[in-house]
This record gives sequence, structure tokens and C-alpha cells, in this order.
Amino acid sequence: MSDKLWGGRFIKKTKEELERFTAGEDIQLDQRLAIYDVIGTVAHDYMLYKIGAINKETLQKILISLWSIKHSIENNKFQLRPELEDIHMNIEKTVIEEIGEECGGMMHLARSRNDQVLLDTRMYLRDQINETIELVLNLISTFIEVGEKNLETLMVGYTHTRQAQPTTVAHWCGAYVDSLLRIVDRLEEGYVRVNQCPLGSGAISGVSWPIDRKLTAGLLGFDGVQENTLDAISSRGEAESEIIFVLCLLMTVLSRLSEEIIWWSTREFGVIELDEVYTTGSSLMPQKKNPDVVELIRGRVGRLYGQLIQVLTILKGLPSGYNRDQQEIKGPIFYGLDTVKSVLQVMPGLLNTIKFNQERMLLILEGYSTVTELVDLIIKEAQIPFRSAHRIVGMYVNQILESDKTIDSDLLSSLIKSEMGKEIKVTTEMIEKAIDPKETIARRNHIGGPAPVEVERMLKNRKDVLNSKRNSLVKRIEKIKSAYNEIENLVRDFSLK
Amino acid sequence: MSDKLWGGRFIKKTKEELERFTAGEDIQLDQRLAIYDVIGTVAHDYMLYKIGAINKETLQKILISLWSIKHSIENNKFQLRPELEDIHMNIEKTVIEEIGEECGGMMHLARSRNDQVLLDTRMYLRDQINETIELVLNLISTFIEVGEKNLETLMVGYTHTRQAQPTTVAHWCGAYVDSLLRIVDRLEEGYVRVNQCPLGSGAISGVSWPIDRKLTAGLLGFDGVQENTLDAISSRGEAESEIIFVLCLLMTVLSRLSEEIIWWSTREFGVIELDEVYTTGSSLMPQKKNPDVVELIRGRVGRLYGQLIQVLTILKGLPSGYNRDQQEIKGPIFYGLDTVKSVLQVMPGLLNTIKFNQERMLLILEGYSTVTELVDLIIKEAQIPFRSAHRIVGMYVNQILESDKTIDSDLLSSLIKSEMGKEIKVTTEMIEKAIDPKETIARRNHIGGPAPVEVERMLKNRKDVLNSKRNSLVKRIEKIKSAYNEIENLVRDFSLK
Amino acid sequence: MSDKLWGGRFIKKTKEELERFTAGEDIQLDQRLAIYDVIGTVAHDYMLYKIGAINKETLQKILISLWSIKHSIENNKFQLRPELEDIHMNIEKTVIEEIGEECGGMMHLARSRNDQVLLDTRMYLRDQINETIELVLNLISTFIEVGEKNLETLMVGYTHTRQAQPTTVAHWCGAYVDSLLRIVDRLEEGYVRVNQCPLGSGAISGVSWPIDRKLTAGLLGFDGVQENTLDAISSRGEAESEIIFVLCLLMTVLSRLSEEIIWWSTREFGVIELDEVYTTGSSLMPQKKNPDVVELIRGRVGRLYGQLIQVLTILKGLPSGYNRDQQEIKGPIFYGLDTVKSVLQVMPGLLNTIKFNQERMLLILEGYSTVTELVDLIIKEAQIPFRSAHRIVGMYVNQILESDKTIDSDLLSSLIKSEMGKEIKVTTEMIEKAIDPKETIARRNHIGGPAPVEVERMLKNRKDVLNSKRNSLVKRIEKIKSAYNEIENLVRDFSLK
Amino acid sequence: MSDKLWGGRFIKKTKEELERFTAGEDIQLDQRLAIYDVIGTVAHDYMLYKIGAINKETLQKILISLWSIKHSIENNKFQLRPELEDIHMNIEKTVIEEIGEECGGMMHLARSRNDQVLLDTRMYLRDQINETIELVLNLISTFIEVGEKNLETLMVGYTHTRQAQPTTVAHWCGAYVDSLLRIVDRLEEGYVRVNQCPLGSGAISGVSWPIDRKLTAGLLGFDGVQENTLDAISSRGEAESEIIFVLCLLMTVLSRLSEEIIWWSTREFGVIELDEVYTTGSSLMPQKKNPDVVELIRGRVGRLYGQLIQVLTILKGLPSGYNRDQQEIKGPIFYGLDTVKSVLQVMPGLLNTIKFNQERMLLILEGYSTVTELVDLIIKEAQIPFRSAHRIVGMYVNQILESDKTIDSDLLSSLIKSEMGKEIKVTTEMIEKAIDPKETIARRNHIGGPAPVEVERMLKNRKDVLNSKRNSLVKRIEKIKSAYNEIENLVRDFSLK
Repeated sequence: MSDKLWGGRFIKKTKEELERFTAGEDIQLDQRLAIYDVIGTVAHDYMLYKIGAINKETLQKILISLWSIKHSIENNKFQLRPELEDIHMNIEKTVIEEIGEECGGMMHLARSRNDQVLLDTRMYLRDQINETIELVLNLISTFIEVGEKNLETLMVGYTHTRQAQPTTVAHWCGAYVDSLLRIVDRLEEGYVRVNQCPLGSGAISGVSWPIDRKLTAGLLGFDGVQENTLDAISSRGEAESEIIFVLCLLMTVLSRLSEEIIWWSTREFGVIELDEVYTTGSSLMPQKKNPDVVELIRGRVGRLYGQLIQVLTILKGLPSGYNRDQQEIKGPIFYGLDTVKSVLQVMPGLLNTIKFNQERMLLILEGYSTVTELVDLIIKEAQIPFRSAHRIVGMYVNQILESDKTIDSDLLSSLIKSEMGKEIKVTTEMIEKAIDPKETIARRNHIGGPAPVEVERMLKNRKDVLNSKRNSLVKRIEKIKSAYNEIENLVRDFSLK
Repeated sequence: MSDKLWGGRFIKKTKEELERFTAGEDIQLDQRLAIYDVIGTVAHDYMLYKIGAINKETLQKILISLWSIKHSIENNKFQLRPELEDIHMNIEKTVIEEIGEECGGMMHLARSRNDQVLLDTRMYLRDQINETIELVLNLISTFIEVGEKNLETLMVGYTHTRQAQPTTVAHWCGAYVDSLLRIVDRLEEGYVRVNQCPLGSGAISGVSWPIDRKLTAGLLGFDGVQENTLDAISSRGEAESEIIFVLCLLMTVLSRLSEEIIWWSTREFGVIELDEVYTTGSSLMPQKKNPDVVELIRGRVGRLYGQLIQVLTILKGLPSGYNRDQQEIKGPIFYGLDTVKSVLQVMPGLLNTIKFNQERMLLILEGYSTVTELVDLIIKEAQIPFRSAHRIVGMYVNQILESDKTIDSDLLSSLIKSEMGKEIKVTTEMIEKAIDPKETIARRNHIGGPAPVEVERMLKNRKDVLNSKRNSLVKRIEKIKSAYNEIENLVRDFSLK
Repeated sequence: MSDKLWGGRFIKKTKEELERFTAGEDIQLDQRLAIYDVIGTVAHDYMLYKIGAINKETLQKILISLWSIKHSIENNKFQLRPELEDIHMNIEKTVIEEIGEECGGMMHLARSRNDQVLLDTRMYLRDQINETIELVLNLISTFIEVGEKNLETLMVGYTHTRQAQPTTVAHWCGAYVDSLLRIVDRLEEGYVRVNQCPLGSGAISGVSWPIDRKLTAGLLGFDGVQENTLDAISSRGEAESEIIFVLCLLMTVLSRLSEEIIWWSTREFGVIELDEVYTTGSSLMPQKKNPDVVELIRGRVGRLYGQLIQVLTILKGLPSGYNRDQQEIKGPIFYGLDTVKSVLQVMPGLLNTIKFNQERMLLILEGYSTVTELVDLIIKEAQIPFRSAHRIVGMYVNQILESDKTIDSDLLSSLIKSEMGKEIKVTTEMIEKAIDPKETIARRNHIGGPAPVEVERMLKNRKDVLNSKRNSLVKRIEKIKSAYNEIENLVRDFSLK
Repeated sequence: MSDKLWGGRFIKKTKEELERFTAGEDIQLDQRLAIYDVIGTVAHDYMLYKIGAINKETLQKILISLWSIKHSIENNKFQLRPELEDIHMNIEKTVIEEIGEECGGMMHLARSRNDQVLLDTRMYLRDQINETIELVLNLISTFIEVGEKNLETLMVGYTHTRQAQPTTVAHWCGAYVDSLLRIVDRLEEGYVRVNQCPLGSGAISGVSWPIDRKLTAGLLGFDGVQENTLDAISSRGEAESEIIFVLCLLMTVLSRLSEEIIWWSTREFGVIELDEVYTTGSSLMPQKKNPDVVELIRGRVGRLYGQLIQVLTILKGLPSGYNRDQQEIKGPIFYGLDTVKSVLQVMPGLLNTIKFNQERMLLILEGYSTVTELVDLIIKEAQIPFRSAHRIVGMYVNQILESDKTIDSDLLSSLIKSEMGKEIKVTTEMIEKAIDPKETIARRNHIGGPAPVEVERMLKNRKDVLNSKRNSLVKRIEKIKSAYNEIENLVRDFSLK
């Protein structure tokens, strides 16, 4: 290394070195946008033809050339030339090489790379959001299934990581279902903002041609036009950070799930067991099952938080209009979506193969996690105010702990007598019924409670919600597909003319 | 200080010291929740009466006591006692002291502090979101007004902080209008998730009383019930981080605005001037106007980014159920809203008093920021492809720069001849018209462009959107108000019985 | 609320409202700097006298006035007047009111508020760093003590949260000792950069008086002068973010400790028990000990991460020289130090009262966490390569698991025979010795291993390091103290003249 | 896409899919560690031989095999097989394939992948830190050179982005020199902590062989041993986050520089000009020079802030011992260093080719940025207190502004008379001299001031500091090199035996 050390005057960087610096990994990221760039250009040039800015022959040649590029891209044969800076120039240059500047030179009329990259990114993002929603819906579906199979499977509910109250696996699954449905809501809301067409914004102030922005927006399957051109350019990064934030929330939920799985599957807790395919073992210690998959999921939440801060930092204090800093936003959103999708692909299988150890859970529940139920018992039986009942049961538990009994109905009766002056006969049966975990759960049958009947109702309802969300997803995807089909037809028609 | 140095064995902390540590600033933050805690308790206890869990006399006494506490709170006379840990225990204790445990001891039946604090926070947050929306709408309104007054006021549009294309003050205002409207959309969407009632979730698994969660939700003006009780408890922090994120986006927009105001109001740029009330001057240098207000706004974006990371960090890897870590979420959301509201209160006045220096802007626009218009001119006049026109105008500008002319129509004609072989007579008038800033802007009259007619249309439309958002805001506020009025009536009725 | 709704035209904010906005909480934070501002001013004005810029009578009057202000501050009687913006103007104004402008008006000569606030902050920070170091050293000391008492107390070592290898409580304590010592190293390194005097930097370019910066730096106990004046002004926030970062690392270590304490003290793990004073219990469930204190510590790591991002965000893209944004840096560093110090005050007591449950740990260690030791046994006994031994022991454990034995020396011997063709008699005694936890630990007596003898050596060594760090701390504190004493003497001398 | 939609039951993931998920990009990152893994293994196995754990023949075969792998790696011919999980298993497996398990199977004795990956990472990091330091020193060197050439080149000093005081380019360069030197200090301090050898920590509790950790540490060129084995394993990520934080600080400094370059090179400011190779232009608008390179640098600060949060988030709440989450730390530190190094390679050339526009700067300085100098003038000439002088000059400037004069010595004299009752004759010459920028700067010749003589002194001193830092760098590099040479010799010796 020492030969590089301050070895003489540095030299002015060559143009190529600087191109490498400025393009950076961006040219690789652009590869993902290639197909969208072609489709967007078809729509734009068709619109130019419709408003009379280019003639039919020109359009025809452009379309044929673009469509052959599309085939190259689809077959991974379209190589980006770094010296042409970005995807947009690569495609335009290829077209001009094929059909000459006379026609190809009209392709970029009434457009700027600023609105073009926005367009490509929006088209990419809406597909990615749809894919992500699909994967979250799959995970929700898994939670519903696991829940339905475990309506009565006992589970320990924890607060402060301490045994608190009994609940069921189904109730626990239902909590994740509802949490994830809100994530889907947010992704859908973000989608609405993403699916507005920025094409026609030009560099910042639109263009001096009478372009028809509604036409191109419609052709490309957008829900509308992002109108103010300066807003469209300046807001680059806003939709991206919104999506990344929702992914952060999603990863936070999954980090909660991972933390629970990690600790609950320790030998010390032993309440769940991971399928071995989701663990890494050791040829030496067969009982050792390291929960690597969920540890990595918990760790990858860091990526998303980091990517969120990256984008927000870039945007902080940036003036209106395009600034090159914004190029740096592609990485975090593209890689962030990659990370989350890979996690979502793994999670349903992992979840679906978890074993819930009933025996162990019952053992744990035999402790004192149901003793609070006695409070309600004596309120009801003896018309004692809540705070007093709370105090009496506290005394009871303290004394029970010092004795070797697990239940002492006489003690409870006498405490009620001495504290409240009420003669009430509490029986062993009453106590047993009160603290029986199943009974405890069954009593909690109000809206949202863990009683099997209520959880069943909720899960059934969530299946309907899930279906409705899937229908919306299909509609969004179909809208894009059918727009692209129209464009394909349009190209075919023009090619034949 | 040295006397404190490792001075002997540390001592076991006293209970009081640890109370101070655990309560921390939380007890101060709880003060904001006091009024909501009272109202929430009225609704809860009324429901208990309706389901037969407490009798009319008990309810009557509780309500009278609670209402007198409410008056104390409203008159800033209700002092929280730190040894009672939190707002909930303070209120319950006060009621019990007033009316005895026989009745007061029933107040907390079928409830946990876990769902109680969630309830109070949601009630506080929905008011705060409404207030914030109102302030954002006021700022939007200011942008619209300033825009309407400046439909034809020229402005330099920048890309890469370089003069790029002419636009108008109205167009620039419109960009902020649209950007801020999307912030309002997000706040409204977040509101929907916040305005679900968590009451009845108990510690985590609901309660063993047949509570009527819809009744309490309705009484308190909620749009619905957050059903799954475990989800309600575990999702603490989710709504908060969503709102903080939207505030981050809002502050990012305002940091963009601040950055522009700061640089544009320098003597070097000189395109805008801040009203002196929004600057700090110097008795010594009267021309010096430091833009402290906007610098602080730019700096305060850091607070929000920090608060976002704070909440996300707390939530990372936290298992289901209540964990004490979650107490730490109150600070960032409460203070975050405070910060943003104070910024929003200042901004409209600042914006409304900015002077736009037309003379200076015209001078700047006389440079080369309109020269690209010649490309379109010769495309239209000489049917030259865009890329060729682009090249020809490049040559023209280079040669003009070396001469002492500012316009040379002969040169342009001859370049068209030599490059494209076309005989076209470009006149000085044609060039002048093409590069005239006003004409340039007027031509950009497609959807979203800066042409006054189009911006006028957009601003008019946005006023309608604004009004509709104000109507929704009023409805949300009225719904809460009328719920609280009902509760007040209910208390009055019971007090008289 | 609705009456505030868009109620007419907003009004230009009054100067007072804007002062409230710009001063914000800053005036409260400034209160902490008051005493330093006085001392700094004494040093500065004394220097002015020494270079002949002010005369003796002027200096005398200023000093007497400043010293009486110092007494007010020390007795909490110096009230900041918000309309005077900041601490500097408050003090100068008070002096002028007392001794007239003739003399008092010279106080601020050859200085700017820009270098003054830097000076005050540095003086405050160095005290705070010293206090924090003291508290970390106390915590280290506690870890050493607990370690020394538990050299042979067994502990389960975990990887992937799975039982991995036995270790000792002392070894575990030693890991925290070393981790915390590196934190102290970093704080000491940061201190060196903080303890450079910025006074004399003026607004940005120094002053046009022949000031003696070394004199003031020496008087105030600084280690040197931060020379380049523009650097001194522009680097505001750099030292602050460095300190906050070190606090983040410290809190990360404490969040690791908290996580361990939380999970290990669950009923399921049961390997440690928290003293009840550090938990919150329930009158109802005496066995329930919620680890609120450590949960809050784990949660408060979020504050520090947030404060770090806050400062970094403020600094991003800020040009040279003072910008008002930088005022926003005071909050995160001041409050960040408060948070960490309060955590450090609680931790030693909590740690010192933890009970380590030997019985439970032994039970856990009886599992398979020592079985890897057999690999080393047969490598040594049978000269079998590591990888082969690894495989053989894997087979052995698998077969043992299926039988009802816990040790089967014949099986192991026969596996060695069949796999490697070696006739080796492994005895039950050999196996028992190999997997005995105490023996296992004792064998790991190389540098850094858990063997009691080695841990004892390390802890002894760390006590020396601790003492040396305490000596350095005392020296740093004494240097400041003695500087302040000199200043006090100097004021007394002048007052008497 | 729709065919993938919830198309039937998901299937248990295959082992390969999950391997892809867990290895992720990690296997690519591991490629960078390959060479270090080989060298580390040589040292480890040599030590095993020295303590008698393996015999000479075994060592000999292992070394020969490892060295041939080393050649493959150096010639980019060593392909990692993903199914072997990581670099460590790839190398061990290759050795065993070459020389058989009898010898190759001993390679991994008394070691764990946990300490192995720590070792490799430390070896990689120390090289990376040295490279980064070299690049920062080059940048500092450039600043010194530019400064030396511009000792008297005037520059406008800004506060609040407003013209404040004159300074020089050299003074501005010196500020960056000092700022960057502190970055180097921090990198050097971090290096000390990185360059401690973790080898021998085993999984967490060391190993049951009498390993000689000092021997391996010495062979590998480490400064010492990170002793406590649990600390070594648990602290993974600590050194990484420290280095990333220093890189954040460095990028913050460069974002400051970028912000200044961006705005100062606008046509409106016009005080500096970027060499066109560092801008992207437009064939159309030759005067347009977009500062893309510095915009990207400003944007890339976001990457580092993001990577810092990523690592801190991963570490939050992670218990002791190895957890798979920690694998995720490689990405941010490796890519973070890549980003910063590429920025540092570009910066010196960019800086060295900036043109400082003296004419424009002088024009700007002719405003009021030197008028404060009059305060000092009349203090000195008329013995007027600072505050009074401040007030008088304020009046003077106000009246001058309303007249058409630029200097009015009579006015100043008469103000002194009327305000202070002093008869002082201020002459035009006195005023001219006072406010002359060159004179102003020359007067500021105290330590750290912009006077050419003082800046020259500082720059000369910093060159010495730079040389001393370069010497330390060479020593650090030489120590590693010579260790590696020793290892090479050792391998050669054994190969020949």
C-alpha cells in the first residue's frame, strides 16, 4: 500500500473516473427501470403524434425500434453503456442508431430526464407496492389459518415479559392479523399517491408544447396526473420515504414477532418449537436449534430504519427543483423493498410450522397468572367494591404462598368476613372455576376478547377483509396490465400500418 | 465536585429515588391527559352501570366527584402527587378520598391502566391532529393567497441551484400547496387509525365482565373499536410513529422552503426580502437581516427526525403486551406536535410579508435561462428533429457568447442552413418573442404548467379542496364536541337524580 | 376549539411572539450556562486589562458587579429576562444597570456572542463529561466487586439466546467491565477535544484587538486554544455529537445488560432475581415483579439515538460560520447527558442487589451445554483430528438421546473404533470429568478465559486501570478547580485594590 | 404477476432457499475477508503447533495448502461455494479436500467461527482505516496547498448566510484543515481499539486448549489482545459503529464544504468557479455548470447517517454472546467505507481546481461587511465604551444609507460630539484605513486570526502535524506488512522442511 502514499501531486480526475463517481451504482439500479422507460416513451411519443408534434412515419419507426429494445431487455440482452450516463440516454441513443436522427431525434421532444426518471420510478414503485401487499396478505392469511386451527390452544399472555393472563394462540394470531392489516391500509394509501403521473413536468416548469398529460396518464394506467410541475419535480423522495416508513413499521411488527419466537423457543421458555428447517443446528449438539432466520429478520429491521434516515437526510434542506442529491434515493427504496419482500417470503412457512407446546403452557399457567380472577369472583358474589376485593385477594395470595395449599376457600371467606363484615361462603368449586384458564378465557367474550367464539367471529370477519383487499389488489394489477396491453396493441397496429 | 468522587459504598436506592427515576418527566406529560382521563372514566363507569356492574347511586357519586375534579383541572388547580405514580391513580385516589371506597372503589372495575393510558393518549392525539391540520390548512390558505396575488410575478426556477427556466411566484406557491395538501391527506388517514377506541382491552386479554365496548366508543366520539385487545395493547407507539413520520415529512417540506428563503434573501441573490419582524438585525449594520426564524425552522427538522428514530428504536424488538419502555413514547409525540404547531403558527405571517423583487428577478432571467426556447422555435419553424435543433442552438449560443451581440438571427439561420441544408429565415422578432420570459411562461399552459391561466385554475380548484378539508375538519371536531356535550348532559342528569 | 378555525386574516406576529419562538426553551437551557458565562467574562475582561484595552478602574467595577451576579446565580436568584434574548445579554445588561455604561459598556469589547456561547458550552460540557466518567467508573467498580464475589459462581453462556457454554458470573461481569472501560476511553478522548478554548474567535474572523488567547485559555483551565477562529465557530455541534455518540454506545451496552436482566429474571429462566426495590409489584400477585427500571433503561436508549440523529441532521449541509440552526444543538446534548447520568445513578444499586440463582443455573447446565468438551477429550486421548472427533461426538450424542442413559463410555469407545479404527478405552470417569461444568471452566485458563484464576487476574488488573482513570479524573477536576480558585483570588485582589 | 397471487398453499421453504435468505449478500461481503482468513489461520495453526496441539507434518501440509489458496484468492480464482455458508467453511473444506481430514481436520481446532470472523473483520478494518486516513491526509494536504497559494486572497466570511466579515481563502482552508485533523485523530483513536486481537475467544468462553493468544496477536501484527472472551464476542459492532460515526462526522464536514461550493458557485454569488470537469454542463447552455459531484457528496452523507442508525438499531437490546443479527453489521461498515473513500478520492482534485473570483469578492466586500471596524476605531481614538461606540456607529450607518455618500467623516465626528460630548476629529483617511478589507484582515493577527502572517504560521505548523501523522500511518502499515512478511517466511520455511 505504501507506494500509493502521498506519492506526488494528485492529478485532475479524468472525465471517466468522475463519470464512475457520479453514476456509481445508479446505472445498475437503472437496469430495473429499463422496461418502464420503454413503455413510458411509447405513451409519450404516441401523445406527441396525437397533438401533431410528430408525424405518423416518425412515430411508426420509433415504436418498432423501441419494441425491439423491449425484447432485448426482457431477454436480458440490453446492456447499459455507462458512458451514456443513464437508462434514458441509452435507450434514445440506441433508437437513433437504429432509425437515424431524423426520426429518432424526435423521441425526446417535450420531455426532460427529470420527469422521465420520475415516471419510471413511479411505474416501478407501484408494481413493487402491489407485490409487497400481496406478500403481506399471504402472511395475514397464514396467521388466520394458524389462528383457526388454534382457537382453543392456550397461550400465556405476557406484560413486562412476565406471565400476566391466559389467552389463546388464535387471539395472539388475531393481534398480528389486525396489525398487518393496518400496514396494508397504509401501503394502499401510499399507492394512491404514487400512482399519479408526473410525465409532462419537464425540467421543472413543464414544456412549451401543448401536451396532453391526461392522455399519457391514462395510457400508462395511472389514476391521475400530479399536476403542478414544480411540485412533481420537487417532491421526489416524498413517496419513497413514505413507503420506506411503512416498511419500517412492518419490520417493527416482524421484529416483535421475531423477538417472541426467539425467546419463546429457548429451552427455558419452551412454549414453542421452530421447525428445524428454519433453524441452524449443530452436528454435535442435536438439541441446539439456533433461530438464525428470525434473528436475521430482527436484525434487518436496522436496514429499513437506516434507509429511512438516509432518505430523510438527503431531503433535509434541499431547495425546490431537481438536485443531483436525489439520485441517491433510488438505492434505499429499491433495496428496502428487496429486503422486506425476501423476509415476507420466508415468514409464512416459518409461522405455519411452529409447534405450540400445550403441556408446557399449561404448566406455566398453573402459576398465579389467573389469580386475579378471584377479584371478580368476590365482587360478584359478595358485592364488594373493586379496590377492596383487590386488597382482599392480595392478602389471600400472600397467605396461600406461605402455606402449602394451592386453594383455600375457607381462608378467602374469612378474609371477606374480617375485612368487609360480610358472611359469604366461597366454595372450592367456585374458586377452581374462577381460576381455570379455559373458563377464564371463555368469560372474556366481549368484542376483541380471547374467548374462542369471539376470536372465531373476528377471524371470519378478517377473512372477508382479506378477500376484499385481494380483490382491490387484483383490480390495481389488472388496470396496469390492461393499460400495457393497450400499449402493446397500439404498437402492433402502428407497426403494421 | 471531588467530594462526590467514589465516596464510599453506594447505597441501595430508596423507593422515592426510584419513583423519581421511573416516573421521570412522565408525570408532567400526564398532566396533559388529565381532562381526558376524567371524561374517559365517566364513559366507562356509565357503561358499567348500563351493564349492571355498578348501581345508580355509586355511579352518581362517582360522576359528581369526577366532575369537580374536571373543574379543578380546567382551573389548573389539580396537582398531581408523584407518589401516586400517574394521572390514573391520582384521579382514582382523589375520588376515593372524596366519596369513600364503597363507591369510589368501583371506579376502576373492568379496566386496566394499560387500556386507560391508551384511551387518554388517543383522545389527546385526535385533538392534536385536528389542531395540526387546522394550522396546515391555514398555511395552505396563505400560499393560495400569495399565489393569487402573484399570478404573473416572475420567478426564477432553479435546478441544481442553477437558473433553469422562468416560472411565477404563483406556480411556486402552488407547488407548496399541493405538497402540503398531501401532508393533510396523510394526517387525515392517520386520524382514522387513531380514532379507534382501545378501552376494554384490559391488561392484554380484555376483562371478565360483559362490557359494552361499542357503547363507550360511541360515548367518547370514536369512529369505532380497536377490537383485538392484545393488538390494542401491543400497537402502542404505532400510531404515534405514524404521526411523527408525517410531521417529519411536513418539516422536510418546511426545511425546503426555509432553505430557499434563506438563500434567496441573501444580498447576493436578492430575489426576495423578509419582513424585518421575521429577522434579527443589528443596530450597527442596518442592512443585515439575519433570517433566524427560518434558520430555526430548518434546524427543528432535526428534532422530528430524532423523535422518529427515538420511537422506532423503542419499538424495535419489543415483545407483545405492555412493556414499560413504551412510556418513553409520550415525550417524542407530545413534544413533536408542540414543535410543529409552533412552527406552523409562525409560517403564514412570515410568508405573507415576503417581498418578491421583480426587478432583480428580471435581471437574472435576462441571462440564458430562456435560451432553450429557441430549440422549440426552430423545430416548429424548420421541421428539424429535436436532437438536431438542440445541437444547432448549442452552436449558436457558443458563438453568441464570443461575440458582443445578444441576439443574431442571421447566425441562427445560417447554422440551420449549414447543418440541415434548410433555408429558413429566422427573424429577430421571432427570437425575441421566443425568449421573452412572459411569453415563455404563457406558452406553458398545459395541465400543471406555470401559465397564469392554468395556475389560476389550479389555485381555484385547491380552494375548493381546502374548503372541503375544512368541512371535514369541522365535522371531526363537532363529533368530538357533541360527544363531550352528551357526556356533560349525562353527568348533569345523574347529578340531579 | 372551532372558534379558532381560520378566523379571519392572520396577523403579523408581534415581536414578542417571535421572540418566544426564537428563544424557545433556549433561555431555560441557558440558565445552566450562567455561572460559566460570568467566569468566562472575568477571564476575558482581565485579559483586556492586561493588553491595555481597558483600564484598572473599569475592570475593578466590572469584576465586583460580575461577582455579585455570580452569588445571585449560585443562590438561584438570578432571573433571566426573556426579552434580553440570552444569558449573555442578561448578564451584560445587569452589569451596565449596576455600574453604568462607561465601565459596563466595555465588558463585551473584542468578543462576540458567537464565541461566548461556545466558551460557556465547552466549560459546561467538560464538567458534565467528568461527572459522567465518574458515574461510569462507579458502575465499573460495582461490576468488579460483583465479579470478585462470584469468581466461581456458575453462569450459562448463551449464543443465539441458546445455552452454549458454561461460564461464571465473574467472567460475565468482566466483559461489562472491559466494555465500559472503552466507553471511558472514548469520553476521555472526547474531553481532550472539548477542552480547547474557543474564546477570541469573535463572530468568525477573530477581532481587531491584540487579544491574548493563551492567557484566557490558561485562566479558564483549558488545555489549549482552538486556534483557527472560523473553525472554532463552524465546528459547533461536532464535539456535542461526538459525546452523544459515546453516550449512545454506552446506552447500547446498558440496553444489552437490561435485555439480559429482563429475560433472565423471568419465571421461565429464573437464573437471576432482582431486588424488589428495583421492580414494581402488585399487591395482588406477590410473585409478580415487573422489571420497570431496566425496561425504562432499555427504552431510554431511544432518546440517545434520537438525539444523535437530531444533531447530525442539524449539521447536515450547514455552511461555515454561525447559523441560528445551531442553537438547537443545546437541547439534545444537555438532556442526553441528564438521561444517561440518571441511568448511571440507578444501575450500580440494581446490579449489586441481583441474586444469582446457582441451583437453577446448574440445572440448566446439566443439559448438553458441556458436551462439546468430549470432542477435545477424544482428540487428546485418541489423537483424532478435530473434524473427525466432531463427527464422532455428534453420533454419540444422537444415540445417547435415543437411549435413556446420560453417559455411555462404551458407546463412545466403540464409535471411535468403528470410525477411526482406533482402540481407545474411554472411561465413565473421563467423560464425567470432561463435561463437569467446573472442570470445563477451570480448563479455560488462557488469557481472557473464564477460569477463576484468570478472571481474578483480569479483575485485579482492571482495578488498577480503574484507579488510574480515577486519578486522571481527579487531575482534570483539580485543574479546573484550581483555575477557578485563581480567578476568585484575582477578583478578590482587584476588589480590594 | 397475477398467476403468483395467493396461488394455493405455500410450501415449506427448501433448505436452499433458506440458505439464500440467511447468507444473503453476506457471502459476497465475505470475499473481501478471504485473504485475511487464510493469514489468520496460518497464525492460529502455527500457534497450535507451538503449544503441541498439532504436529509439524500436519502444520506443514496445512500451510502449503493454505498458501496455494492464498494465491488463488490473489488471482481472483477462489470461488466461494454458497452451500458452504461462509468464507471460513469454504477455506477449511478446500484444505481438507486437498490434504485429507487427517491433517486438514485439525485446522479448526481450538477455534470457533465466532472469533474467526471477528479476527478477519478486524484485520480488514485496520487496513481500511489506514487507507481512509491516507485519503483524509491527502485532502488536508490539498487544503494546505490551496491555503498557501491564497494567503492574501480575500474571501467573504458569512454568518447566517449573510456577509459578515472579510477573511481570506487561506483562513477558510485552515478551518477545514483543523476540522479534518480532528477526524484523523478520531480515526487513529478508533484504530487503537480495532487493532486488538480477538482470536482465541472461541464461541464465547474461550477454548479448553492452552492456547497462546499473545503469540497469535503478535504474529498478526496486533497491538494487543482483547482479553475477556465474552467481551470480544459481545462487542461485535461496537468498533464498527465507532468508525461509521467518525465517517458520519467526516461526511458532515464535506457536506458543509459541498453546500458552500454549491451556493458560492451559483451565478448569483459568483465568488468561486468549479473546473468544468467537476460539473455537468449542457451542450445547449454553455454557461450552465451543474455541480453534480458536490451535490452527490452532499447527498451521500445520508448513506452514512443511515448506516450508523442501521448498526445502532441492530445492537439495541441484543443480549451477550453471538447473535445472528450481528452478521448484518458487515454491510454498513464495508459499504460505508467504500462510499467515503470514493468521495475522498474525488475531493482534492475538485478543490485544487476551484477558481476564486477576487473581483467579485471585492465587490461584495465593498458593502457594509467591514463597517463594524469603525466601532473599534472610535473606541481607540475617542476612548468611548464599546456599547456606546456600537450605538454611535449604528446611527452613522443609518444616516449614511439615506445620503448618497459612502464615507462621511464629519458626520461621525459630530455624532461622537453629540452623543458623548467629545471633540474628536475623525478623518476620511482614518475611516478608509479602518474599513479597508486588507487592513481589517491584517489587524486580526492574534492566534487563529485571518491575518496572512498568522495563517501562514498555522499552515506551516499543520504541515508538521500532517507529516507526523503520515509517519504514524507508515509505521502502522509497516507493522502489519512486516508481520505478514514474517508469516510468509514462516510458511516458506515450513514448506521447505
